[in-house]
Amino acid sequence: MEKQKVNVIKVGGKIVEEEDTLRRLLDDFAALDGYKVLVHGGGRSATRLAERLGIESRMVDGRRITDADTLQVVTMVYGGLVNKNIVVGLQARGVNALGLTGADMNVMRSHKRPVVKIDYGFVGDVEQTDGSLLADLIHKGIVPVMAPLTHDGQGHLLNTNADTIAGETAKALARAGFDVTLTFCFEKQGVLRDENDDQSVIAEIDEASFRQLVDEGVIQGGMIPKLQNSFEAIRAGVSQVVITQASHVAQTHLGTHCR
Amino acid sequence: MEKQKVNVIKVGGKIVEEEDTLRRLLDDFAALDGYKVLVHGGGRSATRLAERLGIESRMVDGRRITDADTLQVVTMVYGGLVNKNIVVGLQARGVNALGLTGADMNVMRSHKRPVVKIDYGFVGDVEQTDGSLLADLIHKGIVPVMAPLTHDGQGHLLNTNADTIAGETAKALARAGFDVTLTFCFEKQGVLRDENDDQSVIAEIDEASFRQLVDEGVIQGGMIPKLQNSFEAIRAGVSQVVITQASHVAQTHLGTHCR
Repeated sequence: MEKQKVNVIKVGGKIVEEEDTLRRLLDDFAALDGYKVLVHGGGRSATRLAERLGIESRMVDGRRITDADTLQVVTMVYGGLVNKNIVVGLQARGVNALGLTGADMNVMRSHKRPVVKIDYGFVGDVEQTDGSLLADLIHKGIVPVMAPLTHDGQGHLLNTNADTIAGETAKALARAGFDVTLTFCFEKQGVLRDENDDQSVIAEIDEASFRQLVDEGVIQGGMIPKLQNSFEAIRAGVSQVVITQASHVAQTHLGTHCR
Repeated sequence: MEKQKVNVIKVGGKIVEEEDTLRRLLDDFAALDGYKVLVHGGGRSATRLAERLGIESRMVDGRRITDADTLQVVTMVYGGLVNKNIVVGLQARGVNALGLTGADMNVMRSHKRPVVKIDYGFVGDVEQTDGSLLADLIHKGIVPVMAPLTHDGQGHLLNTNADTIAGETAKALARAGFDVTLTFCFEKQGVLRDENDDQSVIAEIDEASFRQLVDEGVIQGGMIPKLQNSFEAIRAGVSQVVITQASHVAQTHLGTHCR
């Protein structure tokens, strides 16, 4: 029997936090045929709310230090404001969305990141993802919308990187028998050969060409961990990973394809 | 075939917003055997957050006037903070909770309350509840935890009275074939014959005795609409409605039973 396809699409905070870009994203996502999952961020809104509440936002390497007050902020923003705005917008477009954190239905369990050099606070590293309940819901036509929060099974929510949530969800759905395409949306059209030339998208990368492009200095900085995650997902059974712009979510031939 | 029992339990904001009372409630709710649903409020936290953000809370007859800013506050507090705190606390107690607003899976659709004398703003009157998806999840061992938010199918969340959410959920589950007990938790042990005597709980009320107790002036004020809602639920197929204290959720013989 042929495997059923599912698209797991991760969009960053910026896109889902502004009315215009959110509207366009929801239109594009609603137009995408077949089974699908949306994973979102929300960092800018969290920073904004924290600021209004007089809570300082501290970031280390792009990761938010999450003390108890900040955890309340991200719970409100990721689990409430951003997630429910997406859900209600998709419902208006005929998409039967269901907003989830990792605590809901025990979908994603994590442990608090151990303190090595930096104490990230209430930040979770994912341990276990239950793809079977997600798969059941997807087969019923439900479209999960996942917020970047997990839980430790001991009563604590943990702030969790949205790229990680997307990767773990994709892997769990692959284990549950789906043919999974994982799409990371970011501000560029794909992985670029020349960062000043938007037309220089590398259409396809495999692990060998990835290593070569890193050696040549073509791929550098934050793109390296993104691609490492992508190939890890592929080794774990995800069929392909696409790195592209949010405006291209419905045109799956665009962007950079990792296989 | 005998109908399967389900308990729909509604708890007010006060209980779920303080650490001690929340802990006790979650212990009691986790100890309750069989299928169950929890419906919660969160008004005090919403008022508190609104205050911190410099947003004025305006109430008319105990109902919150919900302008656009206030809708954001209740979305964050009801859909995020309060709901996810309950979910994560139940997961830690081995209860497979799933937090929902009415927008999630299109469970509860409403329309914006028409302006008669007062413009309540983004407040929803429930139109339609889908009990079948809830029933499927309940049969799978999932425990829905419902926040007092619904949606209009046009992209708007609407602030919705938690008693109404509980009543509509109970009725929908009755239609889906369950033997439903709906429990409203409030600060007293039940409907009291003498409001100064906590021992004077009326153990059982039917519609005839309700009318008589109102005529006699024994039941008055806010208890009248609560009991009217209760009997409306019973006429719509709910087996019984219990009015009791939150600390008695696991002792279903206590409180006032409406049949």
